[in-house]
Amino acid sequence: MSSPLIEFYWDSASPYTYLAATQIEALAARHEATLVWKPFLVGKAFEATGNRAPATIPAKARYLSKDLAMWARHYEVAFKFPSVFPVASLASLRIACGLPEDLHGKWALAVMRAYWTENQDIGQPEVLGRIATSLGLDAQATLALAQESEVKEKLKANTEEAVARGVFGAPTFFVDGTMFWGNDRLPLIEALLEGRLGS
Amino acid sequence: MSSPLIEFYWDSASPYTYLAATQIEALAARHEATLVWKPFLVGKAFEATGNRAPATIPAKARYLSKDLAMWARHYEVAFKFPSVFPVASLASLRIACGLPEDLHGKWALAVMRAYWTENQDIGQPEVLGRIATSLGLDAQATLALAQESEVKEKLKANTEEAVARGVFGAPTFFVDGTMFWGNDRLPLIEALLEGRLGS
Repeated sequence: MSSPLIEFYWDSASPYTYLAATQIEALAARHEATLVWKPFLVGKAFEATGNRAPATIPAKARYLSKDLAMWARHYEVAFKFPSVFPVASLASLRIACGLPEDLHGKWALAVMRAYWTENQDIGQPEVLGRIATSLGLDAQATLALAQESEVKEKLKANTEEAVARGVFGAPTFFVDGTMFWGNDRLPLIEALLEGRLGS
Repeated sequence: MSSPLIEFYWDSASPYTYLAATQIEALAARHEATLVWKPFLVGKAFEATGNRAPATIPAKARYLSKDLAMWARHYEVAFKFPSVFPVASLASLRIACGLPEDLHGKWALAVMRAYWTENQDIGQPEVLGRIATSLGLDAQATLALAQESEVKEKLKANTEEAVARGVFGAPTFFVDGTMFWGNDRLPLIEALLEGRLGS
Protein backbone atom coordinates (compact mmCIF):
# COMPACT_ATOMS: atom_id res chain seq x y z
CA MET A 1 0.00 0.00 0.00
CA SER A 2 1.32 3.42 -0.87
CA SER A 3 1.60 6.18 1.70
CA PRO A 4 -1.51 8.40 2.03
CA LEU A 5 -1.16 11.94 0.70
CA ILE A 6 -2.26 14.96 2.74
CA GLU A 7 -2.27 18.27 0.88
CA PHE A 8 -2.65 21.24 3.21
CA TYR A 9 -3.79 24.57 1.74
CA TRP A 10 -2.71 27.19 4.24
CA ASP A 11 -2.75 30.97 4.56
CA SER A 12 -0.92 32.45 7.54
CA ALA A 13 -3.70 35.05 7.88
CA SER A 14 -6.17 32.38 9.06
CA PRO A 15 -6.36 31.52 12.78
CA TYR A 16 -7.99 28.12 12.24
CA THR A 17 -5.18 27.34 9.81
CA TYR A 18 -2.64 28.03 12.56
CA LEU A 19 -4.57 25.70 14.89
CA ALA A 20 -4.64 22.98 12.24
CA ALA A 21 -0.94 23.49 11.49
CA THR A 22 -0.07 22.74 15.12
CA GLN A 23 -1.73 19.31 14.77
CA ILE A 24 -1.21 18.11 11.21
CA GLU A 25 2.42 16.96 11.36
CA ALA A 26 1.71 14.60 14.26
CA LEU A 27 -1.44 13.36 12.53
CA ALA A 28 0.48 12.70 9.31
CA ALA A 29 3.22 10.92 11.25
CA ARG A 30 0.68 8.67 13.02
CA HIS A 31 -0.55 7.47 9.63
CA GLU A 32 2.80 7.55 7.79
CA ALA A 33 1.21 10.02 5.41
CA THR A 34 3.10 12.35 3.09
CA LEU A 35 2.30 15.96 4.01
CA VAL A 36 2.46 18.62 1.30
CA TRP A 37 2.21 22.26 2.41
CA LYS A 38 0.41 24.40 -0.18
CA PRO A 39 0.47 28.15 0.47
CA PHE A 40 -2.49 29.97 -1.10
CA LEU A 41 -4.37 33.23 -0.72
CA VAL A 42 -7.60 32.49 1.13
CA GLY A 43 -8.89 36.01 0.39
CA LYS A 44 -8.76 35.23 -3.33
CA ALA A 45 -10.68 32.01 -2.69
CA PHE A 46 -13.32 34.05 -0.82
CA GLU A 47 -13.59 36.40 -3.80
CA ALA A 48 -13.77 33.60 -6.35
CA THR A 49 -16.46 31.63 -4.51
CA GLY A 50 -18.56 34.44 -3.02
CA ASN A 51 -17.63 33.29 0.47
CA ARG A 52 -16.81 35.73 3.25
CA ALA A 53 -14.43 35.65 6.18
CA PRO A 54 -16.46 34.39 9.17
CA ALA A 55 -15.60 37.45 11.25
CA THR A 56 -17.65 39.68 8.94
CA ILE A 57 -20.75 38.62 10.93
CA PRO A 58 -20.49 40.43 14.30
CA ALA A 59 -22.26 37.69 16.32
CA LYS A 60 -20.00 35.09 14.72
CA ALA A 61 -16.88 37.19 15.35
CA ARG A 62 -17.73 37.42 19.05
CA TYR A 63 -18.15 33.65 19.26
CA LEU A 64 -15.07 32.83 17.20
CA SER A 65 -12.68 34.70 19.48
CA LYS A 66 -13.80 32.45 22.36
CA ASP A 67 -13.89 29.39 20.13
CA LEU A 68 -10.26 29.91 19.02
CA ALA A 69 -9.13 30.20 22.63
CA MET A 70 -10.95 26.97 23.51
CA TRP A 71 -9.39 25.06 20.61
CA ALA A 72 -5.95 26.31 21.65
CA ARG A 73 -6.51 25.05 25.21
CA HIS A 74 -7.88 21.77 23.83
CA TYR A 75 -4.74 21.31 21.69
CA GLU A 76 -2.52 22.69 24.48
CA VAL A 77 -0.90 25.24 22.18
CA ALA A 78 -0.28 28.95 22.61
CA PHE A 79 -2.69 31.42 21.00
CA LYS A 80 -3.00 35.18 21.19
CA PHE A 81 -5.21 37.17 18.87
CA PRO A 82 -2.88 39.65 17.10
CA SER A 83 -3.38 43.40 17.23
CA VAL A 84 -2.94 43.74 13.44
CA PHE A 85 -5.83 41.82 11.85
CA PRO A 86 -6.37 41.09 9.05
CA VAL A 87 -2.70 40.87 8.17
CA ALA A 88 -0.87 41.12 4.84
CA SER A 89 0.13 37.47 4.49
CA LEU A 90 1.20 37.80 0.84
CA ALA A 91 4.98 38.03 1.33
CA SER A 92 5.04 35.17 3.85
CA LEU A 93 3.16 32.96 1.37
CA ARG A 94 5.28 33.95 -1.62
CA ILE A 95 8.45 33.14 0.31
CA ALA A 96 6.91 29.78 1.22
CA CYS A 97 6.57 29.10 -2.51
CA GLY A 98 10.26 29.84 -3.09
CA LEU A 99 11.84 27.79 -0.32
CA PRO A 100 13.08 24.23 -0.80
CA GLU A 101 10.55 21.57 0.10
CA ASP A 102 12.18 20.46 3.35
CA LEU A 103 11.64 23.97 4.73
CA HIS A 104 7.95 24.30 3.82
CA GLY A 105 6.54 23.08 7.13
CA LYS A 106 9.19 24.83 9.23
CA TRP A 107 8.56 28.17 7.50
CA ALA A 108 4.77 27.86 7.70
CA LEU A 109 4.84 27.02 11.41
CA ALA A 110 7.41 29.69 12.26
CA VAL A 111 5.41 32.37 10.44
CA MET A 112 2.11 31.32 11.98
CA ARG A 113 3.57 31.04 15.48
CA ALA A 114 5.08 34.53 15.16
CA TYR A 115 1.72 35.98 14.13
CA TRP A 116 -0.74 33.87 16.13
CA THR A 117 1.19 33.54 19.39
CA GLU A 118 3.71 36.41 19.52
CA ASN A 119 1.70 39.26 18.00
CA GLN A 120 4.34 39.89 15.34
CA ASP A 121 3.13 41.62 12.19
CA ILE A 122 4.16 39.18 9.48
CA GLY A 123 3.32 41.79 6.86
CA GLN A 124 6.58 43.55 7.83
CA PRO A 125 9.79 42.51 6.01
CA GLU A 126 11.90 42.84 9.15
CA VAL A 127 9.67 40.34 10.95
CA LEU A 128 9.97 37.86 8.08
CA GLY A 129 13.72 38.47 8.01
CA ARG A 130 14.00 37.60 11.70
CA ILE A 131 11.98 34.42 11.13
CA ALA A 132 14.34 33.48 8.28
CA THR A 133 17.36 34.03 10.54
CA SER A 134 15.78 31.91 13.29
CA LEU A 135 15.56 29.05 10.76
CA GLY A 136 19.21 29.44 9.81
CA LEU A 137 18.41 31.17 6.49
CA ASP A 138 19.89 34.34 5.06
CA ALA A 139 17.37 37.10 5.77
CA GLN A 140 18.00 39.19 2.63
CA ALA A 141 18.02 36.21 0.27
CA THR A 142 14.81 34.91 1.83
CA LEU A 143 13.05 38.28 1.54
CA ALA A 144 14.23 38.57 -2.06
CA LEU A 145 12.28 35.40 -2.92
CA ALA A 146 9.04 37.35 -2.52
CA GLN A 147 10.00 39.48 -5.54
CA GLU A 148 10.73 36.63 -7.94
CA SER A 149 8.22 36.31 -10.75
CA GLU A 150 8.39 32.50 -10.65
CA VAL A 151 7.48 32.56 -6.97
CA LYS A 152 4.62 35.02 -7.55
CA GLU A 153 3.28 32.76 -10.30
CA LYS A 154 3.52 29.70 -8.06
CA LEU A 155 1.35 31.31 -5.37
CA LYS A 156 -1.16 32.42 -7.99
CA ALA A 157 -1.22 28.92 -9.47
CA ASN A 158 -1.72 27.32 -6.03
CA THR A 159 -4.65 29.65 -5.37
CA GLU A 160 -6.26 28.99 -8.74
CA GLU A 161 -5.74 25.26 -8.30
CA ALA A 162 -7.37 25.42 -4.86
CA VAL A 163 -10.43 27.23 -6.18
CA ALA A 164 -10.68 24.82 -9.12
CA ARG A 165 -10.66 21.92 -6.65
CA GLY A 166 -13.55 23.43 -4.65
CA VAL A 167 -11.69 25.28 -1.90
CA PHE A 168 -13.65 28.23 -0.41
CA GLY A 169 -11.87 28.76 2.93
CA ALA A 170 -8.92 27.80 5.09
CA PRO A 171 -7.56 25.51 6.26
CA THR A 172 -8.46 23.01 3.55
CA PHE A 173 -7.01 19.53 3.29
CA PHE A 174 -7.16 16.95 0.54
CA VAL A 175 -6.52 13.46 1.83
CA ASP A 176 -5.95 11.14 -1.10
CA GLY A 177 -8.17 13.55 -3.02
CA THR A 178 -11.01 13.88 -0.48
CA MET A 179 -11.53 17.46 0.66
CA PHE A 180 -11.82 18.53 4.32
CA TRP A 181 -12.39 22.09 5.49
CA GLY A 182 -11.43 23.28 8.95
CA ASN A 183 -9.27 22.17 11.88
CA ASP A 184 -12.51 20.70 13.25
CA ARG A 185 -12.39 18.04 10.48
CA LEU A 186 -9.13 16.54 11.75
CA PRO A 187 -11.13 13.76 13.50
CA LEU A 188 -12.79 12.94 10.15
CA ILE A 189 -9.37 12.86 8.45
CA GLU A 190 -8.17 10.42 11.11
CA ALA A 191 -11.30 8.31 10.58
CA LEU A 192 -10.69 8.25 6.83
CA LEU A 193 -7.04 7.26 7.27
CA GLU A 194 -8.09 4.51 9.66
CA GLY A 195 -10.56 3.15 7.11
CA ARG A 196 -13.55 4.03 9.27
CA LEU A 197 -15.37 6.31 6.81
CA GLY A 198 -16.22 3.71 4.19
CA SER A 199 -15.83 4.75 0.59
CA MET B 1 -21.22 19.57 42.73
CA SER B 2 -24.38 20.26 40.80
CA SER B 3 -25.14 18.55 37.51
CA PRO B 4 -23.88 20.41 34.41
CA LEU B 5 -26.55 22.02 32.23
CA ILE B 6 -26.59 21.55 28.46
CA GLU B 7 -29.04 23.76 26.56
CA PHE B 8 -29.51 22.64 22.96
CA TYR B 9 -30.97 25.14 20.48
CA TRP B 10 -32.29 23.04 17.60
CA ASP B 11 -34.18 23.56 14.37
CA SER B 12 -35.27 20.43 12.50
CA ALA B 13 -34.44 22.18 9.20
CA SER B 14 -30.70 22.01 9.97
CA PRO B 15 -28.74 18.89 8.96
CA TYR B 16 -25.88 19.51 11.38
CA THR B 17 -28.48 19.84 14.14
CA TYR B 18 -29.76 16.36 13.27
CA LEU B 19 -26.19 15.03 13.45
CA ALA B 20 -25.63 16.69 16.82
CA ALA B 21 -28.99 15.40 18.08
CA THR B 22 -27.93 11.82 17.42
CA GLN B 23 -24.94 12.30 19.77
CA ILE B 24 -26.00 14.70 22.50
CA GLU B 25 -28.08 12.39 24.72
CA ALA B 26 -25.21 9.92 25.10
CA LEU B 27 -22.78 12.78 25.72
CA ALA B 28 -25.06 14.25 28.40
CA ALA B 29 -25.48 10.82 30.00
CA ARG B 30 -21.68 10.30 30.11
CA HIS B 31 -21.35 13.48 32.15
CA GLU B 32 -24.59 13.19 34.12
CA ALA B 33 -25.60 16.49 32.59
CA THR B 34 -29.13 17.85 32.39
CA LEU B 35 -30.12 18.26 28.74
CA VAL B 36 -32.68 20.93 27.83
CA TRP B 37 -34.03 20.90 24.27
CA LYS B 38 -34.77 24.42 23.00
CA PRO B 39 -36.60 24.61 19.68
CA PHE B 40 -35.92 27.85 17.78
CA LEU B 41 -36.10 29.21 14.25
CA VAL B 42 -32.58 29.29 12.85
CA GLY B 43 -33.76 31.29 9.82
CA LYS B 44 -34.79 34.12 12.14
CA ALA B 45 -31.37 33.97 13.80
CA PHE B 46 -29.78 34.27 10.34
CA GLU B 47 -31.92 37.33 9.62
CA ALA B 48 -31.22 38.94 12.98
CA THR B 49 -27.45 38.50 12.78
CA GLY B 50 -26.80 38.96 9.05
CA ASN B 51 -25.63 35.38 8.80
CA ARG B 52 -26.57 33.14 5.88
CA ALA B 53 -27.26 29.45 5.52
CA PRO B 54 -23.93 27.84 4.48
CA ALA B 55 -25.48 26.29 1.38
CA THR B 56 -25.96 29.76 -0.18
CA ILE B 57 -22.29 29.58 -1.33
CA PRO B 58 -22.24 27.04 -4.20
CA ALA B 59 -18.69 25.77 -3.51
CA LYS B 60 -19.59 25.35 0.16
CA ALA B 61 -22.85 23.58 -0.69
CA ARG B 62 -20.96 21.05 -2.83
CA TYR B 63 -18.55 20.36 0.00
CA LEU B 64 -21.21 20.22 2.72
CA SER B 65 -23.19 17.45 1.06
CA LYS B 66 -20.08 15.24 1.22
CA ASP B 67 -19.18 16.49 4.68
CA LEU B 68 -22.62 15.56 6.07
CA ALA B 69 -22.31 12.05 4.66
CA MET B 70 -18.86 11.66 6.24
CA TRP B 71 -20.10 12.80 9.66
CA ALA B 72 -23.00 10.34 9.44
CA ARG B 73 -20.58 7.50 8.68
CA HIS B 74 -18.30 8.70 11.48
CA TYR B 75 -21.21 8.65 13.95
CA GLU B 76 -22.60 5.46 12.40
CA VAL B 77 -26.06 6.98 11.93
CA ALA B 78 -28.37 7.05 8.92
CA PHE B 79 -28.46 10.16 6.74
CA LYS B 80 -30.18 10.93 3.45
CA PHE B 81 -30.43 14.41 2.05
CA PRO B 82 -34.18 15.11 1.66
CA SER B 83 -35.78 16.03 -1.66
CA VAL B 84 -37.68 18.96 -0.09
CA PHE B 85 -35.02 21.44 1.11
CA PRO B 86 -35.24 23.85 2.77
CA VAL B 87 -38.24 22.56 4.68
CA ALA B 88 -40.99 24.36 6.63
CA SER B 89 -39.90 23.37 10.13
CA LEU B 90 -42.22 25.85 11.87
CA ALA B 91 -45.05 23.46 12.86
CA SER B 92 -42.63 20.80 14.11
CA LEU B 93 -40.90 23.39 16.31
CA ARG B 94 -44.15 24.89 17.61
CA ILE B 95 -45.40 21.45 18.58
CA ALA B 96 -42.09 20.86 20.37
CA CYS B 97 -42.84 23.96 22.45
CA GLY B 98 -46.25 22.61 23.47
CA LEU B 99 -45.33 19.07 24.49
CA PRO B 100 -44.52 18.07 28.07
CA GLU B 101 -40.82 18.15 28.93
CA ASP B 102 -40.29 14.38 28.99
CA LEU B 103 -41.27 14.26 25.31
CA HIS B 104 -38.98 17.06 24.09
CA GLY B 105 -36.06 14.86 23.09
CA LYS B 106 -38.24 12.08 21.72
CA TRP B 107 -40.19 14.51 19.51
CA ALA B 108 -37.07 16.31 18.28
CA LEU B 109 -35.31 13.07 17.35
CA ALA B 110 -38.39 11.53 15.74
CA VAL B 111 -38.99 14.65 13.62
CA MET B 112 -35.35 14.94 12.58
CA ARG B 113 -35.03 11.24 11.79
CA ALA B 114 -38.18 11.39 9.64
CA TYR B 115 -36.78 14.32 7.68
CA TRP B 116 -33.05 13.58 7.61
CA THR B 117 -33.13 9.82 7.17
CA GLU B 118 -36.54 8.93 5.66
CA ASN B 119 -37.10 11.83 3.26
CA GLN B 120 -40.43 12.71 4.91
CA ASP B 121 -41.60 16.29 4.43
CA ILE B 122 -42.06 17.46 8.01
CA GLY B 123 -43.78 20.57 6.71
CA GLN B 124 -46.86 18.40 6.04
CA PRO B 125 -49.38 17.95 8.90
CA GLU B 126 -50.04 14.31 8.00
CA VAL B 127 -46.33 13.54 8.44
CA LEU B 128 -46.26 15.22 11.85
CA GLY B 129 -49.49 13.38 12.75
CA ARG B 130 -47.86 10.04 11.94
CA ILE B 131 -44.82 10.96 14.04
CA ALA B 132 -47.15 11.82 16.94
CA THR B 133 -48.92 8.47 16.60
CA SER B 134 -45.57 6.65 16.55
CA LEU B 135 -44.79 8.24 19.92
CA GLY B 136 -48.12 7.15 21.37
CA LEU B 137 -49.65 10.63 21.11
CA ASP B 138 -53.00 11.66 19.69
CA ALA B 139 -52.33 12.98 16.19
CA GLN B 140 -55.06 15.63 16.11
CA ALA B 141 -54.36 16.96 19.60
CA THR B 142 -50.65 17.16 18.79
CA LEU B 143 -51.21 19.02 15.53
CA ALA B 144 -53.60 21.40 17.32
CA LEU B 145 -50.71 22.51 19.56
CA ALA B 146 -49.16 24.31 16.59
CA GLN B 147 -52.14 26.70 16.53
CA GLU B 148 -52.04 27.70 20.21
CA SER B 149 -50.98 31.28 20.77
CA GLU B 150 -49.03 30.35 23.91
CA VAL B 151 -47.02 27.84 21.92
CA LYS B 152 -46.38 30.34 19.10
CA GLU B 153 -45.17 32.85 21.67
CA LYS B 154 -42.87 30.29 23.29
CA LEU B 155 -41.10 29.55 19.98
CA LYS B 156 -40.76 33.26 19.30
CA ALA B 157 -39.38 33.81 22.80
CA ASN B 158 -36.87 30.94 22.42
CA THR B 159 -35.66 32.44 19.13
CA GLU B 160 -35.31 35.94 20.57
CA GLU B 161 -33.54 34.54 23.62
CA ALA B 162 -31.13 32.64 21.38
CA VAL B 163 -30.25 35.74 19.35
CA ALA B 164 -29.85 37.78 22.55
CA ARG B 165 -27.39 35.15 23.83
CA GLY B 166 -25.30 35.39 20.65
CA VAL B 167 -26.69 32.50 18.59
CA PHE B 168 -26.24 32.93 14.81
CA GLY B 169 -26.68 29.35 13.54
CA ALA B 170 -27.62 25.80 14.47
CA PRO B 171 -26.97 23.65 16.31
CA THR B 172 -25.93 25.84 19.23
CA PHE B 173 -25.26 24.59 22.72
CA PHE B 174 -24.76 26.38 25.99
CA VAL B 175 -22.88 24.28 28.52
CA ASP B 176 -23.14 25.91 31.93
CA GLY B 177 -23.45 29.16 29.97
CA THR B 178 -20.54 28.68 27.54
CA MET B 179 -21.66 28.75 23.91
CA PHE B 180 -20.69 26.13 21.33
CA TRP B 181 -21.75 26.20 17.68
CA GLY B 182 -21.87 23.08 15.52
CA ASN B 183 -21.82 19.32 15.93
CA ASP B 184 -18.07 19.64 15.34
CA ARG B 185 -17.74 21.29 18.77
CA LEU B 186 -18.94 18.20 20.66
CA PRO B 187 -15.29 17.27 21.42
CA LEU B 188 -14.81 20.74 22.95
CA ILE B 189 -17.98 20.28 25.02
CA GLU B 190 -16.60 16.97 26.29
CA ALA B 191 -13.30 18.65 27.09
CA LEU B 192 -15.10 21.38 29.04
CA LEU B 193 -17.16 18.86 30.98
CA GLU B 194 -14.01 16.91 31.79
CA GLY B 195 -12.34 20.05 33.14
CA ARG B 196 -9.75 20.06 30.35
CA LEU B 197 -10.50 23.52 28.90
CA GLY B 198 -9.45 25.57 31.92
CA SER B 199 -11.57 28.60 32.67
